[in-house]
Amino acid sequence: MNASSIDLARTVMQRIDALAKISDDPHGLTRTFCSPAMRRANGFVASWMREAGMEVRTDAIGNLIGHYPAKSKIENRKSKILILGSHLDTVRNAGTFDGPLGVLVAIACVQQLHVRKIHAPFEIEVLGFADEEGVRYQRTYLGSRVLAGTFDLKDLKRLDPDGISMAKAIRAFGGNPSALRNAKLDPKRLLGYVEVHIEQGPVLEKKNLSVGVVSAITGQTRMRITFTGCAGHAGTTPMNLRRDALCAAAEFISTAESLARRRNEADSGLVATVGQIAALPGASNVIPGKVTLSLDIRHAKDSVRRQAVTTLKQRASEITRQRKLKLSAEVVHESRAVECDKRVSRLLAKAAMTHQRRVPILPSGAGHDAAAMAVITPVAMLFVRCKGGISHHPDESVSEKDVRVSISVMNNFIQLLAQNA
Amino acid sequence: MNASSIDLARTVMQRIDALAKISDDPHGLTRTFCSPAMRRANGFVASWMREAGMEVRTDAIGNLIGHYPAKSKIENRKSKILILGSHLDTVRNAGTFDGPLGVLVAIACVQQLHVRKIHAPFEIEVLGFADEEGVRYQRTYLGSRVLAGTFDLKDLKRLDPDGISMAKAIRAFGGNPSALRNAKLDPKRLLGYVEVHIEQGPVLEKKNLSVGVVSAITGQTRMRITFTGCAGHAGTTPMNLRRDALCAAAEFISTAESLARRRNEADSGLVATVGQIAALPGASNVIPGKVTLSLDIRHAKDSVRRQAVTTLKQRASEITRQRKLKLSAEVVHESRAVECDKRVSRLLAKAAMTHQRRVPILPSGAGHDAAAMAVITPVAMLFVRCKGGISHHPDESVSEKDVRVSISVMNNFIQLLAQNA
Repeated sequence: MNASSIDLARTVMQRIDALAKISDDPHGLTRTFCSPAMRRANGFVASWMREAGMEVRTDAIGNLIGHYPAKSKIENRKSKILILGSHLDTVRNAGTFDGPLGVLVAIACVQQLHVRKIHAPFEIEVLGFADEEGVRYQRTYLGSRVLAGTFDLKDLKRLDPDGISMAKAIRAFGGNPSALRNAKLDPKRLLGYVEVHIEQGPVLEKKNLSVGVVSAITGQTRMRITFTGCAGHAGTTPMNLRRDALCAAAEFISTAESLARRRNEADSGLVATVGQIAALPGASNVIPGKVTLSLDIRHAKDSVRRQAVTTLKQRASEITRQRKLKLSAEVVHESRAVECDKRVSRLLAKAAMTHQRRVPILPSGAGHDAAAMAVITPVAMLFVRCKGGISHHPDESVSEKDVRVSISVMNNFIQLLAQNA
Repeated sequence: MNASSIDLARTVMQRIDALAKISDDPHGLTRTFCSPAMRRANGFVASWMREAGMEVRTDAIGNLIGHYPAKSKIENRKSKILILGSHLDTVRNAGTFDGPLGVLVAIACVQQLHVRKIHAPFEIEVLGFADEEGVRYQRTYLGSRVLAGTFDLKDLKRLDPDGISMAKAIRAFGGNPSALRNAKLDPKRLLGYVEVHIEQGPVLEKKNLSVGVVSAITGQTRMRITFTGCAGHAGTTPMNLRRDALCAAAEFISTAESLARRRNEADSGLVATVGQIAALPGASNVIPGKVTLSLDIRHAKDSVRRQAVTTLKQRASEITRQRKLKLSAEVVHESRAVECDKRVSRLLAKAAMTHQRRVPILPSGAGHDAAAMAVITPVAMLFVRCKGGISHHPDESVSEKDVRVSISVMNNFIQLLAQNA
């Protein structure tokens, strides 16, 4: 097996541009689960898979799967399977790399094997997941959950904004809702799942490096916190008689920022964000009587995140007690961290070392199909630098150079895995 | 002259209730400049003025004026005039005491003189100002500005939300826009203007006292401050790479609160309020890139207020510099403080001493007709305790006991002024 390779980075960039034009919305890139745009995108990607020597099928929920066989002898002995890929759906008014990049890099790797008539000692399947973003049914990872056996069949009854049930949408797309319960992959046959994805953050750009390896997909706690004090006249209420909900909220926001920053000095990765704030009644001459804010806390270690949540709840209580306010703090979402597999990630980092002196190991603050796939197989992720950390936005951008690096790293990885498998 | 008196507090409370029913809006108390409700209210108040022995007229802008003559001999010598009163218009969905209380207490005082056939050595005019709140034309003090000679004739062209010009509204009400330029009172004839008003704040209630004397109507600076940082993904942007506009705003809000509180330890009265805040883009999983907030700063001394504004601008600059953000800080409104007259206020405080061991001297953080009248005559104000500091709200409340005290204090004041005039 020889990984020195023809240059397919340009091809990947052209394919990214081609997929960027396939949208449910003429004014921006929006491609949702089981939509007409998704069908057209699958058609394009299927043709590229075939060009790369793969047999193509679509599964019961609409995941596109390209199969590249193992060395013939081994194939006969029921060889193992390495799964590569990412998702083909997008958020609304999306960027062009989030999802498709991982699918197209995987296809490029297989194409290089195919051109050189090389087969690994394992099968390779390239997945184009039908839904990761969850835009249409407000449920994420629909595609990967089916393969992982964690798809919730009750979700088939969910309705999209037009009142179309998920079951109906799947059938209209050519899928088979009743086959979903048996679609779980056999974990014993899997070598692992490796996903290339744009970083969606500024770390690699800051370090001036093309790629990094993901340590874990962070756990997340989302809270809704309300401070209730007492509204009053901004001119006639002396400072010492106020119960200003916004001053309490400001103190809390600073506390959350300080806590996350302090943790960062010791152990990089805790993030705490207040993204929404509303002060009532909201007049310039009235002291705010009620402030509601969102708090988003993430860390690769659940224990660290939980400790931060506990500490911040305590601090919010102290602030409200000192200020004679009332507090309501409600957890509205919680997800556990998913660690990437150490052995597979080490191989991936080793594969990247031919391109970079240092390969940063960084957490992923956003969710990915790898988080769902981790239930049935070891997962690893390669992050690719993006411009300004921008994602979920039309300005999302990855350089052709970095795409080239990521294809090469994945080729190296397949070669290393072949040696170690 | 004898100030011991029949009890008219109950009457004032009944009249407050009667005026509370006269509204432009069936769902709450709203009585705006030159409206049908205003005409009906003027009719009621005029009848009460006549009952108190006053001659009643309506001036060119719709102010209701009750005239109670001086002792007959002095009247012939062109006696001086003491003006008492307040406004009869309201905010939207108003309380019932803000404005009418001052008019009705003044009428009650005159009624007591009338019942006893007493006349002071000066004329008394009770003013029911046609507009103080400025709801209809977004211009405050319309009534008192006319008497003070500071009415801006350009305002006659302003349109209300229905497109009716102020000039047209005044004519329809029976007023005369072209007479406004000559409506200024002759300052040489005036003894002063004394206004009874609900405190609209919690200070007297906190001190468990019925009334207080106002030192000054505070000056005000209103600013609009914008912090511009950089939006980013709440999961993927490490704390040290963030330019979070809301964290900057939180630091600033705490700074403004601390500054006002610190000043209060030395010199009571500085208030700083952030009443409005908006964080963009406003999603729980996105770091705020832009935050706009309002800042309202008031103090009875202009130098103290200006120093606070300067200090807070500097602190906002420091915060944005340290955080690598951009700052915009714009003054959207500024009004100077108006000091009450020391001699008249001293008499008023002395008049109150028969009811209270201590008579607190407190600034007024809200504006009043007295601020406009101060241009032409010495002004003083008596604040009456209100429940919970609540005002501009249907829950606004003053006790009959405190109304009784305020009538008595004003009677004492008229007696003291008669002795000193």
